[in-house]
Amino acid sequence: MTVRLTQASAPLMRSIAVRDEFGAEREVAIPAERALTVFVDKREIVTLMTLGGAPEALAIGYLRNQRLVERLEDIAAVQVDWETDSVAVTTTRSADDLDERMGRRTVTTGCGQGTMFGDLLEEIDRVSLPAEGRLDEATLHGLLDAVRHHETIYKQAGAVHGCALATNAGDTSAILMFVEDVGRHNAIDTIAGWMWLHGVDGADKIFYTTGRLTSEMVIKSAQMGVPIVVSRSGITQMGYELARQLGLALFGRATNRHFLCYTGFERFEAQPEPARPAAKE
Amino acid sequence: MTVRLTQASAPLMRSIAVRDEFGAEREVAIPAERALTVFVDKREIVTLMTLGGAPEALAIGYLRNQRLVERLEDIAAVQVDWETDSVAVTTTRSADDLDERMGRRTVTTGCGQGTMFGDLLEEIDRVSLPAEGRLDEATLHGLLDAVRHHETIYKQAGAVHGCALATNAGDTSAILMFVEDVGRHNAIDTIAGWMWLHGVDGADKIFYTTGRLTSEMVIKSAQMGVPIVVSRSGITQMGYELARQLGLALFGRATNRHFLCYTGFERFEAQPEPARPAAKE
Repeated sequence: MTVRLTQASAPLMRSIAVRDEFGAEREVAIPAERALTVFVDKREIVTLMTLGGAPEALAIGYLRNQRLVERLEDIAAVQVDWETDSVAVTTTRSADDLDERMGRRTVTTGCGQGTMFGDLLEEIDRVSLPAEGRLDEATLHGLLDAVRHHETIYKQAGAVHGCALATNAGDTSAILMFVEDVGRHNAIDTIAGWMWLHGVDGADKIFYTTGRLTSEMVIKSAQMGVPIVVSRSGITQMGYELARQLGLALFGRATNRHFLCYTGFERFEAQPEPARPAAKE
Repeated sequence: MTVRLTQASAPLMRSIAVRDEFGAEREVAIPAERALTVFVDKREIVTLMTLGGAPEALAIGYLRNQRLVERLEDIAAVQVDWETDSVAVTTTRSADDLDERMGRRTVTTGCGQGTMFGDLLEEIDRVSLPAEGRLDEATLHGLLDAVRHHETIYKQAGAVHGCALATNAGDTSAILMFVEDVGRHNAIDTIAGWMWLHGVDGADKIFYTTGRLTSEMVIKSAQMGVPIVVSRSGITQMGYELARQLGLALFGRATNRHFLCYTGFERFEAQPEPARPAAKE
């Protein structure tokens, strides 16, 4: 059975008039954030603020990462209606099943106060990441180069986070999905939903985020089975502790030829030895 | 009646060993994020991930901004215990009152999925900001200079947001409170709690954040009665629309002598005309 989906991608940017420090009026692009209220079997679950570039995948990924839906097969339809800023998800499950999953709420961070249902932290003990997942230096450099070409909204409007899912296959590595959204959690949830919809496994993939390596990002990568995470930003203690516990490789401050490997350095293959900057530079 | 408070500030950073792109081991500082579960009259409300620099103010500000507590006088005690990573808030209100306030949950963004209870967006209609609040250019420059001296964690460990509350008094303007935390929402909530504890009014103040000008930041500034908000970062559409509706002045991309005024330019006083960069520069 395939999921019935709308394809309701929304305009991602709009232009507004602003004044600069000289009092001059200028037109600038800003991210066209909008509200999207998620209903599951007619029950209101949450209102997400999103750019709305891939709202169906976002809704599915949110429900997946919040453990409100166990399998893609449990979803019959995902229908976005921007007239009402809502997405109606129809499942094949019982209302009791949803009530149980709504369970008690744990609020985690990254943003400070993201939302997760159930007891994900306990679940981490049951997650096992593939030991063979390794990242070679050429692949990392290729990924960072490729990301630069995808950040269209960030370059024009700023104020968004970007997330990418890439294959980890040396010279043939490529970005499979790139999402920019006002919130990094929305971006990664959209990728999680896209992976479900396309039956994509995480074991031989790399997850990239412009955002910080927080506990929530580490947990969501692990949930998707992706053993290698690369970020342009830094790390927090909870992200560090969880990644160590999970055996996840975290590469932060990754720009140009530089990075810091916070955890899982055994998953890294230096090749070739990068040239050190010449003294005169 | 004064609130009984602990003073349980936690260590804000820790050092970990990492590998750089040359495979060399290095010691780096990271933000010492930890969980803090908030209990109100023995009822579990939320678990926040925070640096824990001012956990009592954070708990009070969270309850204030979520409208779970109406007045500081309703709080009898705020007691943080890092042994159990929890803060016990004791109120003088009835359990029914809290149940009612827990109401239905709206999840807003900034991070993508921050949490707010009740119907704050509707409340905005009842917020009125002081018309006289104005910002002169010298004060703005002074604020940006002062912020640089406060960002101690960001400079050493990165991966945190900073928020400041400053007086808006020309040459005598000063930062009253500066908070860095893993989440911008925690940082602004801590300032909101600090304002309550010290009976500080927002009308003649400036709110500064390193984070983006999202709907949640605009709503929280309005709730604190602060008419002027300055950010190092950009803006999202919901933040822009709400600020226009509220008559809030938003200054973004504010670094050195540059800024963009997104809304409320009438609250800005250019003085003196800033020197344009010389052609040769």
